[in-house]
Amino acid sequence: MPDVVFTVDQSKSMRDQAVPGHNRWHPDVPSAVMVRPGQMIRVECREWTDGQIGNNDSANDVRDVDLTHAHMLSGPIGVEGAEPGDLLVVDILDLGPVQPPQEYGDAPGQGWGYTGIFAKENGGGFLTDYFPQAYKAIWDFQGQSCTSRHIPGVRYTGITHPGLFGTAPSAELLSRWNARERALIETDPERVPPLALPPLPDNTLAGLAQGDAAQSVAQDGARTVPARENGGNHDIKNFTRGSRVFYPVHVPEAKLSGGDLHFSQGDGEITFCGAIEMGGFIDFHVDLIKGGMETYAVTTNPVFIPGNVEPRFAEYLTFIGVSVDRETDENYYLDATVAYRRACLNAVEYLKKFGYSGEQAYLLLGSAPLEGRISGVVDIPNACCSLYLPTAIFDFDLKPSATGPVTKDRGQVAMSS
Amino acid sequence: MPDVVFTVDQSKSMRDQAVPGHNRWHPDVPSAVMVRPGQMIRVECREWTDGQIGNNDSANDVRDVDLTHAHMLSGPIGVEGAEPGDLLVVDILDLGPVQPPQEYGDAPGQGWGYTGIFAKENGGGFLTDYFPQAYKAIWDFQGQSCTSRHIPGVRYTGITHPGLFGTAPSAELLSRWNARERALIETDPERVPPLALPPLPDNTLAGLAQGDAAQSVAQDGARTVPARENGGNHDIKNFTRGSRVFYPVHVPEAKLSGGDLHFSQGDGEITFCGAIEMGGFIDFHVDLIKGGMETYAVTTNPVFIPGNVEPRFAEYLTFIGVSVDRETDENYYLDATVAYRRACLNAVEYLKKFGYSGEQAYLLLGSAPLEGRISGVVDIPNACCSLYLPTAIFDFDLKPSATGPVTKDRGQVAMSS
Amino acid sequence: MPDVVFTVDQSKSMRDQAVPGHNRWHPDVPSAVMVRPGQMIRVECREWTDGQIGNNDSANDVRDVDLTHAHMLSGPIGVEGAEPGDLLVVDILDLGPVQPPQEYGDAPGQGWGYTGIFAKENGGGFLTDYFPQAYKAIWDFQGQSCTSRHIPGVRYTGITHPGLFGTAPSAELLSRWNARERALIETDPERVPPLALPPLPDNTLAGLAQGDAAQSVAQDGARTVPARENGGNHDIKNFTRGSRVFYPVHVPEAKLSGGDLHFSQGDGEITFCGAIEMGGFIDFHVDLIKGGMETYAVTTNPVFIPGNVEPRFAEYLTFIGVSVDRETDENYYLDATVAYRRACLNAVEYLKKFGYSGEQAYLLLGSAPLEGRISGVVDIPNACCSLYLPTAIFDFDLKPSATGPVTKDRGQVAMSS
Amino acid sequence: MPDVVFTVDQSKSMRDQAVPGHNRWHPDVPSAVMVRPGQMIRVECREWTDGQIGNNDSANDVRDVDLTHAHMLSGPIGVEGAEPGDLLVVDILDLGPVQPPQEYGDAPGQGWGYTGIFAKENGGGFLTDYFPQAYKAIWDFQGQSCTSRHIPGVRYTGITHPGLFGTAPSAELLSRWNARERALIETDPERVPPLALPPLPDNTLAGLAQGDAAQSVAQDGARTVPARENGGNHDIKNFTRGSRVFYPVHVPEAKLSGGDLHFSQGDGEITFCGAIEMGGFIDFHVDLIKGGMETYAVTTNPVFIPGNVEPRFAEYLTFIGVSVDRETDENYYLDATVAYRRACLNAVEYLKKFGYSGEQAYLLLGSAPLEGRISGVVDIPNACCSLYLPTAIFDFDLKPSATGPVTKDRGQVAMSS
Repeated sequence: MPDVVFTVDQSKSMRDQAVPGHNRWHPDVPSAVMVRPGQMIRVECREWTDGQIGNNDSANDVRDVDLTHAHMLSGPIGVEGAEPGDLLVVDILDLGPVQPPQEYGDAPGQGWGYTGIFAKENGGGFLTDYFPQAYKAIWDFQGQSCTSRHIPGVRYTGITHPGLFGTAPSAELLSRWNARERALIETDPERVPPLALPPLPDNTLAGLAQGDAAQSVAQDGARTVPARENGGNHDIKNFTRGSRVFYPVHVPEAKLSGGDLHFSQGDGEITFCGAIEMGGFIDFHVDLIKGGMETYAVTTNPVFIPGNVEPRFAEYLTFIGVSVDRETDENYYLDATVAYRRACLNAVEYLKKFGYSGEQAYLLLGSAPLEGRISGVVDIPNACCSLYLPTAIFDFDLKPSATGPVTKDRGQVAMSS
Repeated sequence: MPDVVFTVDQSKSMRDQAVPGHNRWHPDVPSAVMVRPGQMIRVECREWTDGQIGNNDSANDVRDVDLTHAHMLSGPIGVEGAEPGDLLVVDILDLGPVQPPQEYGDAPGQGWGYTGIFAKENGGGFLTDYFPQAYKAIWDFQGQSCTSRHIPGVRYTGITHPGLFGTAPSAELLSRWNARERALIETDPERVPPLALPPLPDNTLAGLAQGDAAQSVAQDGARTVPARENGGNHDIKNFTRGSRVFYPVHVPEAKLSGGDLHFSQGDGEITFCGAIEMGGFIDFHVDLIKGGMETYAVTTNPVFIPGNVEPRFAEYLTFIGVSVDRETDENYYLDATVAYRRACLNAVEYLKKFGYSGEQAYLLLGSAPLEGRISGVVDIPNACCSLYLPTAIFDFDLKPSATGPVTKDRGQVAMSS
Repeated sequence: MPDVVFTVDQSKSMRDQAVPGHNRWHPDVPSAVMVRPGQMIRVECREWTDGQIGNNDSANDVRDVDLTHAHMLSGPIGVEGAEPGDLLVVDILDLGPVQPPQEYGDAPGQGWGYTGIFAKENGGGFLTDYFPQAYKAIWDFQGQSCTSRHIPGVRYTGITHPGLFGTAPSAELLSRWNARERALIETDPERVPPLALPPLPDNTLAGLAQGDAAQSVAQDGARTVPARENGGNHDIKNFTRGSRVFYPVHVPEAKLSGGDLHFSQGDGEITFCGAIEMGGFIDFHVDLIKGGMETYAVTTNPVFIPGNVEPRFAEYLTFIGVSVDRETDENYYLDATVAYRRACLNAVEYLKKFGYSGEQAYLLLGSAPLEGRISGVVDIPNACCSLYLPTAIFDFDLKPSATGPVTKDRGQVAMSS
Repeated sequence: MPDVVFTVDQSKSMRDQAVPGHNRWHPDVPSAVMVRPGQMIRVECREWTDGQIGNNDSANDVRDVDLTHAHMLSGPIGVEGAEPGDLLVVDILDLGPVQPPQEYGDAPGQGWGYTGIFAKENGGGFLTDYFPQAYKAIWDFQGQSCTSRHIPGVRYTGITHPGLFGTAPSAELLSRWNARERALIETDPERVPPLALPPLPDNTLAGLAQGDAAQSVAQDGARTVPARENGGNHDIKNFTRGSRVFYPVHVPEAKLSGGDLHFSQGDGEITFCGAIEMGGFIDFHVDLIKGGMETYAVTTNPVFIPGNVEPRFAEYLTFIGVSVDRETDENYYLDATVAYRRACLNAVEYLKKFGYSGEQAYLLLGSAPLEGRISGVVDIPNACCSLYLPTAIFDFDLKPSATGPVTKDRGQVAMSS
């Protein structure tokens, strides 16, 4: 019986909740609630854009999304007795879409979710040079599986997980983040999409912070897009039910916050919000290992033990990529990012032979429970990455054979006008 | 009953075999043997350095290894009827260390194998800035599992696989490889380790090529280190027994060659020869999909279906890394290579808390059946990678707990003098 | 968005629901609701005894349970167009304990469940000659896992499933059931526990049947204890989420009914209600294969495809039994029941060495996600069965070693006074 | 580097080996070799009938097999320091068919194996009332997978294992076996097939025993067909590579013997020699837990930890059976043997709809890596068992669908004349 420590009315913005969440990382966001080690708690979450995306057949909402609102986080959850240097032990007991009595409705997570390809000018994504426009697919949930009217022929059993949870940074850590990310931006300040996002007061939500504290959060609060030393937006699909995560604690009370729940996602989350995005709930058991950061040398990033109820697949079709740009024939030295991009593009080309549009293939690869592996990173000059696509999610035989692929018209995703 | 189409006497160099193999990629290396689609064949292999490394307690042989001999490949296997544009379908029926009556002896694969950390001046590796000297661990094989006197406390069930198989490049493809890799080298020609390895006549072995052909192979033959469009040195640990690989065919007869067998390897093969290296045998079933490259858009890299007898693990401890250099606090834009390196370094630091030396931890991470995954590559500016270390390979509890790690003296690996 | 077609108020008996269910198999129980092929539906269920067992520390309620009420089934669900000879295709989309707003309360399934050892005089069980008294363990649910204050040291990730679903028998089939079971009872009519349970008007609940039909159900309706040709009380732990079951259809509308939800269960469900019993919900997708019984020769029992999200275990300790009575040294010819009982008893004795009482061990074996396998049934005269106990459910090392088991006082289960 | 402690020349009978094996259980069979705890050893084995079955297309050899020769066991392996009351810890490091230079030849295991349906008058089997004649299928090995010219459309990845290993019985234990099995035979001495097999001097092979000892083995030695307290003919398919078995020790030196290697087998080994039978080799690591029988209460049967490299399947079609005889409509009280037989028969009927003959289906079910599970054994009066058939072994879609099965002529197995 978890104690519901953070509630969300899905018909309202995160700004209008009884206790609002926040959308920047900052030590001065006060704990919204205090819990004790050993407690089981439920945290309700909004979808990461605070509900800007609708269950419809146009991608205009994706094209026009205001990303300064993101990510809408629930929390912070303060943990009694937590001090800098501890490890916060978080068991994910359960999670899922929005629960009764709010199980159906207009907000993502109320019986449905979406995957979006973001426009190059507004968000971008892993293949943004190949797919610069906005697109969208809507997914309907049926228990732990889902289907999409925009991508027929597949059904996923979701590895449901939170994209983003983390502890609050200390003031010193936050300042390092801001410094290093500003330094990166400086190397190409006009780039589209940008290299990083600096603090931005617009649309900052500072939780229960008031006055100077609120202003400080708006001024200096780190954007929530990347993963950093506090955890953050890992987008690790295997943070699923049954997982135990050990977060470094950087401030008193630890201040755990998060959200960005995903019904399913492929490794890399390649379409930017490649996951099937939703609001919902997550149940935790929290505990502490006092002084655990030093004891276990977990000082730079969290460690975790994945759960044991991920969907089980026995067969995959695997695409390989090496760090060579196919168009320019340029060689990138041991660059795993380029190698994985090539594996993704190889998979897109393959799927098109079965009748999918490129956009369908891209959205599928972002959201399917596929694995992206680093295969070789020492064989100069080429990194090699591989993408394991489970064949059981397709209702046709995906494997190459002498008879060739069964091609058919498979429709199209939601497009922007 | 596979037909043994390529034999190796493990007491002799690949140069002195009845039919010698080759160590460069070039279309003019003649097929050593012809096989027909549908045939089951056995190919025997030398360890990749041609036996330069010994079963002893000094890493001097790793330090002084002559890499111009590598990789010693068996083949080419010519396939009747294969033409450019086809897909060569290769089933890996079985593979393993050297078989009776040669099962014990001085060559890697004769009952033992090794993992090496190569010196920064002679090979390098993924963590070469942290481990610039040469080190080595010897592994003894017991059926499908292995142990090392240099790394006590672990036992692996190997995901045995070939590091390297591929088809011959066409003359045009070869010329593109050489051009693009030379262009890369030109960007920093004095770098140690080098950015790439250009063709080099020294110690070239050209198989059955003679005269002008042999000279051409020595002059222009591509080095075998990286993976490229023909397959090549993928170092994909999941190319294991039961796998089916679809290789693009670039020349008549396809000309399949390979070797570099690994008893076990972790994703990334991070110590350069992070795998447990060995000679041995591999059994194939070969077939063709005529015109398959175009039919399935498999034009850039092979695709494959992994086997279903990999060791089964249910529990992992997962290390996370993001693309920030911890020492300099520099941010690398969506750089999965940096992120995975950080995950590896985090794992090394963790393992040291249990009494392992850094070198032991590094060699362990290179050779253990661990998974390296690309987790997030769109969350600007940080890529996020994760390393899944199976806990069952340890004879102690690897997980963090309130009681702390059981530390003990775990000895040391073989070092160079 | 499944349509909720059968609702349960967990504060009331199944007899007092808006639409009552039934507790006998009979073709004349009218469909409580009609659904169409292709529809997604939710069915809410009461715990099988209709809530006779409480969340407390006495087993008196188990000892005194009135089994004439069992099993309380939800349904029948009529399927439009279903005719005898069809296969009813049922996908289990999701299932679980009682959902909000009823998630906590006094009925099993409201945040908790129980496992019972039934008294020999009132129910019995697989080891009733060894454990003739009533005992009970209470389990608390935390997401997909559970723990018990009565059996410390274990935590299960449940393979949640319905113990009992089935289609209605035809009049002819029902009459065969009654005839053959009465014939069996006749062979030893005074046996305790009885060999089978004949129709019994006491406490019969006939759903929406009225008048003569209701009387007929009470008079001739088959008891719900065993599995039969219509499906029924299979207690197959792998009927879990993601499964697709093909039920033979024996009457128009198919009339699917069921309940007896289990949070977790071991193969054999050896303590009679060895599962962790609960009320809750189950979501189905229903479809028909017209004439499928003949097409696929599925005429005697259902077939099914298990789901792919069962908890994943990699290590088991396996107990073996052969069909010899250890006490009397009597040999039972190829008797798998005796062999499996011996495997269970061997496991009980083993667990006692770690400090568990026999009752704790027995309740653990009934409810843990263990596998019971038929290993050899042709090696005269001994059948051989094996019981695979996953080691990861224990918080100590269960395996034999040279250091011996860590024994401690592990308390005791709820007993009867 | 295991020490080869028992060798077999596959061109000769077990009787003519340098050190002969034995085919009866008796404490007076002397150890053929002594090994020490901690040693790694290789044991070579003959196929169980000593090579009476040929690689041909007639089942006359199965029909006429002389079962008094069986099982031809390698050993006994004496273990230094082993005493009654200890547990003998046996790790199965590796096993497989006959190795080079004997890898091809006329004996089962030399590149091929067979599965047999034994005649009711000479061996029988689980479905002998339905298949009373002798039949045979030959399997060709390709690495870890196999195919049969007699059963097209399937390919198995074998869960290779020894059918039979065990320690020697004490004189007292042997005498109990003989007494109880004779008592069983007495209940129906003329039965065909017999209820059990008593000691029989004909064709007894007593290893190195001579004179009185040899006579005693012939006179009183227990037949090797069933599993008993010493281990013996378990036919547990999961005794595969990587397993650790704990055998009770009943005599000084433990005296481990075994053989009856199987390339693949389904749970139950339902055709009597339902496994794919072969000779070959097995590598062990042996150790002792002194006094372990009492310490762990492992006094009646061995326990074991299965290996982690069994083939991985994600999808099964599951057949269910309950303990009712379909022909006579007789009810068998909680009889798991009858229930599993019904599940097998249901599967045979199903497979016939795809064009297999009944004999093909039966031989397939005996040898495929399928699981037979005890599902419910408390739901009076019906036991419920289930048979999990992995769909990936078929080269067509085995699942029920609206389009019906693809039927074709699939030939026939080898028959007797």
